[in-house]
Amino acid sequence: MNQPGRAGISRYAAPSREDAETEFNRVVAFSDGVFAIAITLLVLTLEIPAGVDDLGQELRDRAEEFLAYGLSFAVLGKFWITHHSFFGSLARFDARLMALNLLYLAFIALVPFTSDLLGDYSDQTVAVIIYALNMAAITGIFAATVRYSLRHELIREWAKPHTRRFAGWTEYTITVVFLISCPVALLSPTAAIVVWLSIFLMGGRLLDVMAVEPREEPDRD
Amino acid sequence: MNQPGRAGISRYAAPSREDAETEFNRVVAFSDGVFAIAITLLVLTLEIPAGVDDLGQELRDRAEEFLAYGLSFAVLGKFWITHHSFFGSLARFDARLMALNLLYLAFIALVPFTSDLLGDYSDQTVAVIIYALNMAAITGIFAATVRYSLRHELIREWAKPHTRRFAGWTEYTITVVFLISCPVALLSPTAAIVVWLSIFLMGGRLLDVMAVEPREEPDRD
Amino acid sequence: MNQPGRAGISRYAAPSREDAETEFNRVVAFSDGVFAIAITLLVLTLEIPAGVDDLGQELRDRAEEFLAYGLSFAVLGKFWITHHSFFGSLARFDARLMALNLLYLAFIALVPFTSDLLGDYSDQTVAVIIYALNMAAITGIFAATVRYSLRHELIREWAKPHTRRFAGWTEYTITVVFLISCPVALLSPTAAIVVWLSIFLMGGRLLDVMAVEPREEPDRD
Amino acid sequence: MNQPGRAGISRYAAPSREDAETEFNRVVAFSDGVFAIAITLLVLTLEIPAGVDDLGQELRDRAEEFLAYGLSFAVLGKFWITHHSFFGSLARFDARLMALNLLYLAFIALVPFTSDLLGDYSDQTVAVIIYALNMAAITGIFAATVRYSLRHELIREWAKPHTRRFAGWTEYTITVVFLISCPVALLSPTAAIVVWLSIFLMGGRLLDVMAVEPREEPDRD
Repeated sequence: MNQPGRAGISRYAAPSREDAETEFNRVVAFSDGVFAIAITLLVLTLEIPAGVDDLGQELRDRAEEFLAYGLSFAVLGKFWITHHSFFGSLARFDARLMALNLLYLAFIALVPFTSDLLGDYSDQTVAVIIYALNMAAITGIFAATVRYSLRHELIREWAKPHTRRFAGWTEYTITVVFLISCPVALLSPTAAIVVWLSIFLMGGRLLDVMAVEPREEPDRD
Repeated sequence: MNQPGRAGISRYAAPSREDAETEFNRVVAFSDGVFAIAITLLVLTLEIPAGVDDLGQELRDRAEEFLAYGLSFAVLGKFWITHHSFFGSLARFDARLMALNLLYLAFIALVPFTSDLLGDYSDQTVAVIIYALNMAAITGIFAATVRYSLRHELIREWAKPHTRRFAGWTEYTITVVFLISCPVALLSPTAAIVVWLSIFLMGGRLLDVMAVEPREEPDRD
Repeated sequence: MNQPGRAGISRYAAPSREDAETEFNRVVAFSDGVFAIAITLLVLTLEIPAGVDDLGQELRDRAEEFLAYGLSFAVLGKFWITHHSFFGSLARFDARLMALNLLYLAFIALVPFTSDLLGDYSDQTVAVIIYALNMAAITGIFAATVRYSLRHELIREWAKPHTRRFAGWTEYTITVVFLISCPVALLSPTAAIVVWLSIFLMGGRLLDVMAVEPREEPDRD
Repeated sequence: MNQPGRAGISRYAAPSREDAETEFNRVVAFSDGVFAIAITLLVLTLEIPAGVDDLGQELRDRAEEFLAYGLSFAVLGKFWITHHSFFGSLARFDARLMALNLLYLAFIALVPFTSDLLGDYSDQTVAVIIYALNMAAITGIFAATVRYSLRHELIREWAKPHTRRFAGWTEYTITVVFLISCPVALLSPTAAIVVWLSIFLMGGRLLDVMAVEPREEPDRD
């Protein structure tokens, strides 16, 4: 499958999972690490200074920060499960897939910042738009990654039908919903957040489609 | 065991550990990552500003922060060991177990925040109650996870008797003790913390029950 | 090796590495995670606020913080290598070893705090003593862990001579040097730091003794 | 390959990957952990306080912090890929390689600090120079590591030609470019940053050279 002597990036390209299990596992482990750290750093958005007079009141005043924590934990958790399923369906990877994955992770790692902003300024249009753009970037890059993998035959045979179906219609839908929520936020930040809820309703469906399919072949193809 | 063509979440459902070792390991590694990060972030609750006049006095004034660090490290360590044993007894997992695990991790990742609060405001009822509620959420979700796994036959044969015994009586006991400590904290925050100590005395017993049993079969069933 | 029916902690006890490779790997991965996070969190001790007038001067004023960063990175790196060698020589583990390891990690995770203190207050006795006590706790608990493992036959056959030699004379030496540096710090904080340097000179020797020995048997025993 | 009885550091030396797969994997996992944490901690450089009046303006004022985040994420990502390729080409490792790797990681872990400095003070010579020195240290130590591995026969046979070619001419080039940017920064901080861009243009080429070569032997040699 690999042709010795091919130049440039393709030399690094598409080692199969079996040939390069260790390398593949490092990419997966690194991605998981970034996810785990980003999701755990969310807690730093909640810091309350020492010496507050009325702690109960302070906590009530910060209710939106707790909601932002819960929302972002759920969102990152869902992205992680999807990422997990997708990498489970990969037969091989190449340098461009790694670059796309790094770009994807750059926006995953940004979530603690945009989530903090959303918690502190949930009534301000600009904070809501930035959060939506972060989500749109994540889902858009992921959709592009899936599309790229299908076109370059990086997906395992048994996983293709579902990945293709996913790539066919759900792909950019979530990205579009987040982008639509941006002009909505100009009118009402709260309304934009309501728009996001529609994505959670779609999420279950999405998970099904991306789900690791029961294998009819026992081993990896 | 997997039926091709079953719809929705069940399509993702219950790949056996052997069929999906890599996917299983990622869930375990992600959980471990969140535990390791949360337990290490506890240190950020201890920050002392530069330029303090009497450093010795400052450190003595913050004695409760060090106690909270020690308590939370022990608590997270114990939860990790229990989580570790439980995942060691799983034969397979499904999408709902993953969702429960993520919910569980959301409250694990919250501990550095509630621990910081406890260290800064250990004499205030609200800080003690929030810490107790965090612990009650963790143990309650974990108990529900164990119960769910037993009902859906996700536990290995050899581990069932102990898991069942654990699920039978210890399951919600810890959760209840933490919930009981909340009204106690209304009377005296210190008394509530004393109630928690009873759980540590129960902890050894709990560990026994959940412990990985000597296998009579040499290999995985 | 495992006797069904034995009660309590021993039920969890001493699964061999081969029987419980996954569980063993989780302990190792969790420890590595705590090390990696603690060593990387050291960078947070270096924060410089925005809006400083003379940045060059500010950086020179904080020279001790950079020294503390370098020292603590080297120290944690060395501890990690030693921990790494030790776990490489384990044939099995039990619940008490896990508890000792967690206690050990609690003091590893504390290093970013004590290192921050040392960087901010390197001219104050109390900061130097706290750093020394942290190091003494780490090395003391590690020494106790090695001793415990030898007594309970948790070490692989081929690694015993070296581990024993290590346990025999180097074991508590480092702990003692750090403890001796505490009264020295009462006279002069700088002198105490000089005492620590003697440990770095011993470190190479220590590494040798603990080193993974060339195996005369090709496989694990 | 290992000679029992050889003294000191060499006793620990050069276990082959097959003999010591677990130990090798721990080094790789630890390195990946430091990379993942450092890259994710970059987000902490972006913190915006609560209670800002004009959030949009505040964000525009901090445009350079976002550029520094993007730059440092790309840089760390690129370093990680190179590190990943290099470790994929190692046949064995020894204690000195581990020490070099730790030194390398100390400067990787420093990037969130120097990146924060660059974001806050991008118009000041000293911040630009410190960032350049950090990059020069990383690439210089890495080059030394590659050279050391070649000289001590730690590289797999099939990977030697490419590693040698890399070691031959690219090795210190990047380091030199970063060092050259330091006096440039004395004249103009912005010009120095432009110099760095030349490295990104070289980066693709570099990746090719270091890339994991198609294996003519199916298994590890």
